[in-house]
Amino acid sequence: MSSKDSDGLNRRKMLGALAALPALPALFGAKLAEAQTAAADPLPSWNRTPAKVAILEFIQATTSDPSSAAFVPPEKRVAAFDQDGTLWVEHPMYTQVVYCLDRVPVVVKAKPELADAEPFKTVLSGDVEAIAKLSMHDLEEILAATLTGMDVDDFYDEAKAWIDSAKDRRWNRLYTELVYQPMQEVLSLFRANGFKTYIVTGGGQDFVHVYSDRVYGIPREQVIGTAGGVTYGYDKDGRPFLTKEPKLLLNDNFAGKPEGIHLEIGRRPHAAFGNSTGDQQMLEYTRGGHGLRLSMIVLHDDAKREYAYGPAQGLPDTRVGTFTQALYEEAKKSGWFIISMKNDWKRIFAFE
Amino acid sequence: MSSKDSDGLNRRKMLGALAALPALPALFGAKLAEAQTAAADPLPSWNRTPAKVAILEFIQATTSDPSSAAFVPPEKRVAAFDQDGTLWVEHPMYTQVVYCLDRVPVVVKAKPELADAEPFKTVLSGDVEAIAKLSMHDLEEILAATLTGMDVDDFYDEAKAWIDSAKDRRWNRLYTELVYQPMQEVLSLFRANGFKTYIVTGGGQDFVHVYSDRVYGIPREQVIGTAGGVTYGYDKDGRPFLTKEPKLLLNDNFAGKPEGIHLEIGRRPHAAFGNSTGDQQMLEYTRGGHGLRLSMIVLHDDAKREYAYGPAQGLPDTRVGTFTQALYEEAKKSGWFIISMKNDWKRIFAFE
Repeated sequence: MSSKDSDGLNRRKMLGALAALPALPALFGAKLAEAQTAAADPLPSWNRTPAKVAILEFIQATTSDPSSAAFVPPEKRVAAFDQDGTLWVEHPMYTQVVYCLDRVPVVVKAKPELADAEPFKTVLSGDVEAIAKLSMHDLEEILAATLTGMDVDDFYDEAKAWIDSAKDRRWNRLYTELVYQPMQEVLSLFRANGFKTYIVTGGGQDFVHVYSDRVYGIPREQVIGTAGGVTYGYDKDGRPFLTKEPKLLLNDNFAGKPEGIHLEIGRRPHAAFGNSTGDQQMLEYTRGGHGLRLSMIVLHDDAKREYAYGPAQGLPDTRVGTFTQALYEEAKKSGWFIISMKNDWKRIFAFE
Repeated sequence: MSSKDSDGLNRRKMLGALAALPALPALFGAKLAEAQTAAADPLPSWNRTPAKVAILEFIQATTSDPSSAAFVPPEKRVAAFDQDGTLWVEHPMYTQVVYCLDRVPVVVKAKPELADAEPFKTVLSGDVEAIAKLSMHDLEEILAATLTGMDVDDFYDEAKAWIDSAKDRRWNRLYTELVYQPMQEVLSLFRANGFKTYIVTGGGQDFVHVYSDRVYGIPREQVIGTAGGVTYGYDKDGRPFLTKEPKLLLNDNFAGKPEGIHLEIGRRPHAAFGNSTGDQQMLEYTRGGHGLRLSMIVLHDDAKREYAYGPAQGLPDTRVGTFTQALYEEAKKSGWFIISMKNDWKRIFAFE
């Protein structure tokens, strides 16, 4: 005890000496406070706006006090994230569609009769304007031709080779670099608080399998997406494998999102993030559960740093990631939070 | 150092004194060795047979040395388990079918016109022999009538109330007590070594959701089973909910097992356990992957402690959990391990 008292005395002497330097707090106080805030802030790429506060308060309310009505037991902590336009860039075209267009020459090489058949002829022409005008039916035909009919493992290999090398034209970067840093921080924050994070995408489930773990920290088994059937069979050596079939099993858009969530999770999420009309039912379903729920929707209103499209709020209309004014009104009415890329996000990409 | 040396000297003196008691090892040695083995044995309900050794060696080979060819990185560690007849008792009738039969009176109360229609009339008669003779088509009709047409959450509530109270007649115990203790130890062993454990059952996915976490330590999202479609809609207050539909989305039997595994996991398992013809493709698919894979199949050859059925190896034939001689030969040929309940399991139930 005597040694401790002696230390205590020495400490008081030193503190007294420091107190004699009145300039110290003024010199270092502000910097210290800033450093402390940054260290404690799990969402440093967000501005301090209501959207950020809503996320932090939701996490606090659902995880910190087991006696609170808002508390969610760990096994029920599920958070669902749309991908295209919510976790990464979807303009001018969904990344998976770019992959499919890029694969058309390979498919035509194997089936030369397609070279003169539409829509393959248009794709091969390289006429960007004509390609941009392809109908939904044309795109579906291209998707079926380029995403099905092969061994699942071969598809994984091909898609991986593409995603590891293909680059977006505007930024000249890999598509996997075009993930939104603020949303990466949200994924990490949810996981650090015991939530299982799921991708719930209208895109192809198998396509996202290829990079979800590495890019988002989300394992394949937590990816729910549009899924085609597969068929079990044997190769010439009798080894079992699965073939991707042009048969739609789950259309993970609109009502298909809550339906897919039930199929692959079996629980209503407590939080969901989306950005377009295809996410409406998932956001409703999430927010409609008992207890505290969080539904948030990203508005692309930042043409300078990313893209601006709606047509909500007078933004330009688009076929890719449509956010209608009706959806905007629905969000306001239903207590979802609208995330403005322009106002809520301090930084958009990690490479900025 | 001097203090340590002095301790070392004292220890040597004590050991010398103990060595002067030659009877000591004879008195305690055997008991000590036994206690040490039990503490280190993760599969105490298994006899020391090739099946047990195969499991222990598989875990050791796939998880202990990252430089080994058999090593499986943590994110790829997936083990799949059939449920009925592999994790719990399936005779004389699958537990879920008993649930559906028990629910017939409730369904008939809501739809009185069914009381005089087959197969409902037979079920209501209580004639056990006649019920046992119902065709597969009859059973499917009963399953559709009792498992669909309701809110998913209402189904969960009803199934939970049943599983928490209904008892098997032979043991007069809850069905959830009729889980095989040796397999519970296998589930724990795999999880302790970083494997994600999945149920891959021909039974209804939603039914297993109700108790999988509590009974097997397997969360809902790791249950793959036969799944019907659900439809998104709104109740009279505008609250979104899902209705269970009589539309088959995934028949998780035979080739449907690897197909369901791809849909909900996206990876070929490294280990799989089954017990009947419905598991053949899953066991083939698992064993057919590159690197070290483990496929095991339980043979019910213990009429005294549980049930005996095949018809493999001259055991009685059955419609429930059929294990044919052809499957037995396939297992031998393909390097799967056959688990004999009689010889490999020291104990079958935790309550023994």
